[in-house]
Amino acid sequence: MPNVLVLPGDGIGVEITPEAVKVLEAVLKGNSTSLNFEYGLIGGAAIDEVGKALPDATLAAAQAADAVLMGSVGGPKWDTLPAPQRPELGGLLPIRKALGLFANIRPIKMLPMLVDASTLRSEVVKNVDLVVLRELTGGLYFGEKGRGTNPRSAFDTLIYTEEEIKRIVELGFQTAVKRRKKLCSVDKANVLESSRFWREITLEVAKNYPEVELTHMYVDNAAMQLVRLPEQFDVIVTENMFGDILTDLASMLMGSIGMISSASLNGSKGLYEPAHGSAPDIAGKNIANPLATILSGALMLRYSFGLEDEAQKIERAVERVLQEGYRTPDLAKPGDKVLGTREMGNAVVEAL
Amino acid sequence: MPNVLVLPGDGIGVEITPEAVKVLEAVLKGNSTSLNFEYGLIGGAAIDEVGKALPDATLAAAQAADAVLMGSVGGPKWDTLPAPQRPELGGLLPIRKALGLFANIRPIKMLPMLVDASTLRSEVVKNVDLVVLRELTGGLYFGEKGRGTNPRSAFDTLIYTEEEIKRIVELGFQTAVKRRKKLCSVDKANVLESSRFWREITLEVAKNYPEVELTHMYVDNAAMQLVRLPEQFDVIVTENMFGDILTDLASMLMGSIGMISSASLNGSKGLYEPAHGSAPDIAGKNIANPLATILSGALMLRYSFGLEDEAQKIERAVERVLQEGYRTPDLAKPGDKVLGTREMGNAVVEAL
Ligand SMILES: CC(C)[C@H](C(=O)O)[C@@H](O)C(=O)O
Ligand SMILES: CC(C)[C@H](C(=O)O)[C@@H](O)C(=O)O
Repeated sequence: MPNVLVLPGDGIGVEITPEAVKVLEAVLKGNSTSLNFEYGLIGGAAIDEVGKALPDATLAAAQAADAVLMGSVGGPKWDTLPAPQRPELGGLLPIRKALGLFANIRPIKMLPMLVDASTLRSEVVKNVDLVVLRELTGGLYFGEKGRGTNPRSAFDTLIYTEEEIKRIVELGFQTAVKRRKKLCSVDKANVLESSRFWREITLEVAKNYPEVELTHMYVDNAAMQLVRLPEQFDVIVTENMFGDILTDLASMLMGSIGMISSASLNGSKGLYEPAHGSAPDIAGKNIANPLATILSGALMLRYSFGLEDEAQKIERAVERVLQEGYRTPDLAKPGDKVLGTREMGNAVVEAL
Repeated sequence: MPNVLVLPGDGIGVEITPEAVKVLEAVLKGNSTSLNFEYGLIGGAAIDEVGKALPDATLAAAQAADAVLMGSVGGPKWDTLPAPQRPELGGLLPIRKALGLFANIRPIKMLPMLVDASTLRSEVVKNVDLVVLRELTGGLYFGEKGRGTNPRSAFDTLIYTEEEIKRIVELGFQTAVKRRKKLCSVDKANVLESSRFWREITLEVAKNYPEVELTHMYVDNAAMQLVRLPEQFDVIVTENMFGDILTDLASMLMGSIGMISSASLNGSKGLYEPAHGSAPDIAGKNIANPLATILSGALMLRYSFGLEDEAQKIERAVERVLQEGYRTPDLAKPGDKVLGTREMGNAVVEAL
């Protein structure tokens, strides 16, 4: 029986992960594959309990597990710690790096009943169906960083090796092949040496995928185009920092980041988490939207366990619940039936 | 008589700068200050003529001039040159650096008659009135960059000194004081050392501006918030690369970057240019929108020559022309009266 390590983390993380587990158990009921859920500490919760945002036990459990389901980490309580000890820098980034999760995948597909939630005009977003592939273990996030004196200064290094670029770009092409066969590689090759290198490698990899239409776009233009005509995109591939910005921007086309799931993969293992953060301001109130985490569970079934049918069952159940007018407060408009976190989880289970 | 160096550059640059000069001459007619316009080469045009994107003569003229009015540089013709020789890397970035233009200012204010041109819902953008201040001579753009071997790699360095941060943040506070007194500093302090340093300096500078409400926002969140609720912003201040992305994103809230002007300043000199590029695909057809360049001329009067009244006259003339339904093709909707580049310039002159 495959093992799934659940890392609820902080804030609303502890409320939304149980809903995803509930839905995963429900969809697999009677199925030949069932999942064994184990639990671990990460982020602020781990700092409070064992003094470290990524405890050794958590890392060992994650390495042993077949997949990881994460809530979210961070909160004001830990923001005064020295930076390297904080939930993000001490927990989230090291687990990504240690598990070699080089590819962050964020599918952004408009659902008809959510078109009105977008701040963009309906005709602009109604056909949006894109995937952003973000490189997750390189670039400015992990390059050498430090301080200088005389004059006082600080630096970070944006560095990429050929291999790091190749594997994410290859995944970009493979993803495009299974979709509309359009890959847009985003860089800043008119300014950055790392971007020119990125473009060279991308052009080399492209030779193996003649059926894919490859374009290159500068990151400033990509941010504009996502707002101007987002339906032009099929698959976007980009480096870590640009990807951080563009995935969130693309998510916001949907009106709320509360619906957006993500998968962080290497060849053999995946970590699944909602795109949103730990939202300390609404934590503990049973009002957080669990759908991004539930949909991250669907991505887990798809990518880690090859259970495409079951993944789609979850996705369709979520659509049905929304179709019936149920919403958590973040998405609710006058006339909607507002549900709490647990009640939304139950509604998805029923819709299965 | 103050000297203005005009650098038309490439593509539509040669069509839009004459319209701005025409408008500047018209608004100053009979005024005690009049401007002397000189012309110089930059970008691809300079490469073709003298073999260098920023000729020494151009730099000397820019250093001697009281202000610089630029069109735009770049085009496919020069994209196969070695990167450091291209119009952007060899022309635009060095002139910014050599003139010490550390502050790029982009005002983004919705005009009532352009609300419909935005891809965002009218109620979301109708009250947008913000300024983005982008640091322009530091960070990833100018830090050490290079290649490595074994394994093949490439890097860029994001580095900031205390002084570089201080002067742009100070300008941010000063700008906020004259407006709604809200300054949002955008960084990625949960990941980058340079951002943590940026935040420290910002907090130090803040002590001198108790009347300004200072907030800090991560760049991924800032990209989202610009799409979610752009009217929350008054003044945004950020480093070079984040600013490159966010200024363009903020511009696109207006529906077209064809309306957005910019000023790049140091204490004593300014370079004024439209936010858009050289648009080689529409060059030479008399269809480019000259309004961003005309409005950049207004910024020149305001920031370089203290001619606030005349600056406002130009801004009001542009509004009047739009109000009367005149549009260049990039903004035209059915029913609008479509004008060419020259005709739009003439219309603004008449409206003065
Ligand atoms: C919390 C932060 C370090 C993280 C990142 O920047 O990667 C987050 O924004 C994300 O996108 O997962
Ligand atoms: C052309 C390019 C080098 C430039 C930049 O990135 O600064 C442009 O995008 C801008 O914003 O002025």
